[in-house]
Amino acid sequence: MRIAFIGLGHMGGPMARNLLRAGHALHVFDLGAEAMHSLVAEGAQAAASPADAARNAEFVITMLPAPRHVEAVLCGSGGPGGDGTGVLASVPRGVPIVDCSTIDPATVQRLAQLAAAQGNPLADAPVSGGTGGAAAGTLTFMVGGSAEVFAQVQPVLQGMGQHIVHCGPVGTGQVAKICNNLLLAISMIGVAEAMSLGVALGIDPQVLAGIVNTSSGRCWSADTYNPYPGVMPNAPASRGYSGGFGVDLMRKDLGLANDAARQVHQPLPLGAQALQLYELWSRQGHGQLDFSSIIQLLQGQRPA
Amino acid sequence: MRIAFIGLGHMGGPMARNLLRAGHALHVFDLGAEAMHSLVAEGAQAAASPADAARNAEFVITMLPAPRHVEAVLCGSGGPGGDGTGVLASVPRGVPIVDCSTIDPATVQRLAQLAAAQGNPLADAPVSGGTGGAAAGTLTFMVGGSAEVFAQVQPVLQGMGQHIVHCGPVGTGQVAKICNNLLLAISMIGVAEAMSLGVALGIDPQVLAGIVNTSSGRCWSADTYNPYPGVMPNAPASRGYSGGFGVDLMRKDLGLANDAARQVHQPLPLGAQALQLYELWSRQGHGQLDFSSIIQLLQGQRPA
Repeated sequence: MRIAFIGLGHMGGPMARNLLRAGHALHVFDLGAEAMHSLVAEGAQAAASPADAARNAEFVITMLPAPRHVEAVLCGSGGPGGDGTGVLASVPRGVPIVDCSTIDPATVQRLAQLAAAQGNPLADAPVSGGTGGAAAGTLTFMVGGSAEVFAQVQPVLQGMGQHIVHCGPVGTGQVAKICNNLLLAISMIGVAEAMSLGVALGIDPQVLAGIVNTSSGRCWSADTYNPYPGVMPNAPASRGYSGGFGVDLMRKDLGLANDAARQVHQPLPLGAQALQLYELWSRQGHGQLDFSSIIQLLQGQRPA
Repeated sequence: MRIAFIGLGHMGGPMARNLLRAGHALHVFDLGAEAMHSLVAEGAQAAASPADAARNAEFVITMLPAPRHVEAVLCGSGGPGGDGTGVLASVPRGVPIVDCSTIDPATVQRLAQLAAAQGNPLADAPVSGGTGGAAAGTLTFMVGGSAEVFAQVQPVLQGMGQHIVHCGPVGTGQVAKICNNLLLAISMIGVAEAMSLGVALGIDPQVLAGIVNTSSGRCWSADTYNPYPGVMPNAPASRGYSGGFGVDLMRKDLGLANDAARQVHQPLPLGAQALQLYELWSRQGHGQLDFSSIIQLLQGQRPA
């Protein structure tokens, strides 16, 4: 299949590579020349713009940092109608567009309307699994779109991921992702508070984790990704909080959740506080650490 | 074994009943005459005071609402030395005392010192599993005390529970319980925020729960006790939030966690906020509902 792939960063690069390996013909575009060259060396064709990449495509995938980038890649720049450099200016009628970026549901829905008006179905398909999952082809895709477009995009996404989940109409992929990460952000701080308090009161961290993990406090942040150093040998906490899912990425997803909540008048008393705590921790210079390092903010020093 | 059992409420009553069934001889005391009569009808002997119950005991168990009750039952009333009505005034040297109440670790440790000074080992052994677990004899006991006292008390506790966990020195049973419930209280609000936001943004609650439960938001509050009505047929959310673990009980445990945290200078930014949210919800008249009803505070009305 002729696929236009736009956005070749830490996630998009390895995802595109897996599509090449699966035998697809890729037209790629990225603002970074180096990212482009690396894919071209492996058999992709370089495009001069998103419009150029999409011109003869049978399928379009975008993987970009933020709403403004997705909007520019689809619509071009220069306001309504655009300057002809966007995907929508050239993509053949009927070709599906899949945006794998994590952005706000409202932007996705607006872009889907623009695409539908010219006969292109659009699905949102944000991912979980990180750069490791992108390289290994084991990502989870949370797909928002009609049943028809889901059936169309599923086989292509299977070339890059393990679990392809249909969440409902367009935008609900983003909803699933930001709601999961909202809960994750809160749970991680909850585990950090419980572990810090317990150790300060004299219980052994391994014993406390063992009790929580078989009780009603059980959660992924405690039993798979425990933030207390040494409790889980393979968690980022046991290697100085390197690797993993960065504080600044969690900050971005919490920002999306809080913004979306305001639009539907949904109070998030813990979600709002969680965002402020990750903001504090990032502002203190720790934005690149794994998000479980938030326990260090609560402890005031690296745990011994 | 001759066991003194003091405190025959919603938890203590069924626990004492299970000890009778296991063949122990019980001397019981409670301020409520009805609770006493019910146990006496099943073969227990009524005592006139905690001291009277403990006089010939080989083992003492207390199950009481709050620190001041535990203190009065052990020390009697009337200040230092007491008035002779407390357990410590009469209990034979060497007899172990097990307090199953949920109270603060500092009070437990202070009472353990008083007991040790007259030759009685004291262990804290707060429970989880609720009134259902108390009746069925399937409670979990989180035991704080020396290895020697743990070996002594374990066989007796097995008559009332399924899991008897040694948490460390005296007080650490309470630490494990309040840390677990701190995390539980936070997780539940996190799930309530994520489910409320997702549904407000248009995703089906079952689909969202399915995604969260196989992703990094996975937790007991979402996959076993989901607060959104209809997602789990057997959760309190699907029966009007009746039964289960009451808002006022969660309020009590969060109060213990926040108090203990202040004593060791441990910030609990989400735990403090969680306490305030359950306080609000209780003040609005919902203290007797299951604690997962907190989702209704966030939604402003019962979800349709």
